[in-house]
Amino acid sequence: MKIAILGGTGRLGKGLSYRWAKNHEVIIGSREESKAIRTADSFNAELGKFSIKRPIDGMSHRQAIQRAEIIVLSLQFDHLVPLLKELGSLFDSKIVFSPVVPMIKKEIFQFAAPPEGSAALALRNLLPSSCRLIAGLHTVPAAGMKDLDKKLEGDVVVCGDDRESKILIQKLVEEIENLRALDAGPLEVSKMVEPITPLILNLKLFGSKKDLTIKFI
Amino acid sequence: MKIAILGGTGRLGKGLSYRWAKNHEVIIGSREESKAIRTADSFNAELGKFSIKRPIDGMSHRQAIQRAEIIVLSLQFDHLVPLLKELGSLFDSKIVFSPVVPMIKKEIFQFAAPPEGSAALALRNLLPSSCRLIAGLHTVPAAGMKDLDKKLEGDVVVCGDDRESKILIQKLVEEIENLRALDAGPLEVSKMVEPITPLILNLKLFGSKKDLTIKFI
Repeated sequence: MKIAILGGTGRLGKGLSYRWAKNHEVIIGSREESKAIRTADSFNAELGKFSIKRPIDGMSHRQAIQRAEIIVLSLQFDHLVPLLKELGSLFDSKIVFSPVVPMIKKEIFQFAAPPEGSAALALRNLLPSSCRLIAGLHTVPAAGMKDLDKKLEGDVVVCGDDRESKILIQKLVEEIENLRALDAGPLEVSKMVEPITPLILNLKLFGSKKDLTIKFI
Repeated sequence: MKIAILGGTGRLGKGLSYRWAKNHEVIIGSREESKAIRTADSFNAELGKFSIKRPIDGMSHRQAIQRAEIIVLSLQFDHLVPLLKELGSLFDSKIVFSPVVPMIKKEIFQFAAPPEGSAALALRNLLPSSCRLIAGLHTVPAAGMKDLDKKLEGDVVVCGDDRESKILIQKLVEEIENLRALDAGPLEVSKMVEPITPLILNLKLFGSKKDLTIKFI
């Protein structure tokens, strides 16, 4: 598959691109093309020791969206809204994967849901109707993802309205060793999934002290 | 401690009273006193083989609230609202433990949050300000709780604004073997905890087929 990771210069982007580059063509997208290229080059240099499908590419968001079949939105909700308003039409018929969780921190971490109830439901309104949006990967700690030697663990709750795309995304998630993808149903369920991320941050704030993820047993 | 379980004739009530009766004085509360007494009698008959603190009592909601130090709200949100409007003042200075999650089922399970954002935050407004409200136990499957031979497992996320009562409730939870209580901070966080229950039900609906609970790792 051709997978673009918008905002791929961040920690989650690194974790995903390193893991998916083994089997897929990965494109790092950034607002600045030069930054995307620089990041991709540094990823390729680090990945030299692993066998990967082909070198990771760096492109502007616009190019990355056009090139890819699957587009991961590794950007903050506030930054995504203007991006989708500008480039939304390019997402025609693409599969879009959203790990987006809008949050604010006051004394505690709060889930800052848009009026639609979740980031995924708001994004659906900004994307063309031909686009198949799947939400997931909200609770995998980005800090763990970026360290290739670190054993990841936990469950990734996935939801979306297109069955085929959801199965494909679940497979992609499970290519990352030790992650298990669980189908929670339609995109509507994202309202119940996204709040788990600020909850996990509050657990860290009030007791656990370490990065947590979730498992369903 | 003297613990009243309002709505204690249900499955969760059975699970909790069986487990807490070993160390505490447990009172089953019901709208109908006679039903509460009948249920308590049948629990005591079943518990005969275990060593318990003292026989479980059955009382009307009113009596149970007056008698107890800790009151567990094992009732549906819709039933609690009129109950608290009627008997709210009796909760003066009590510790109240809410596992309440308002839900509706259409094609999927939905979190039916009141305007306050969670059941716990709505209940806080209905209770006297001297009452110390702690939310938790939302995700322990009641079906597992009622079977004393079944090994329970999982994490119980607890939140509330009174530190001392929260510690006490965490201890009570951890008296139930294999359950771990995690402090998620103030009662406000209940907005992020309660939606996990309908999420778990959706996971069962769309794939897992078995009762799930959560664990933070």
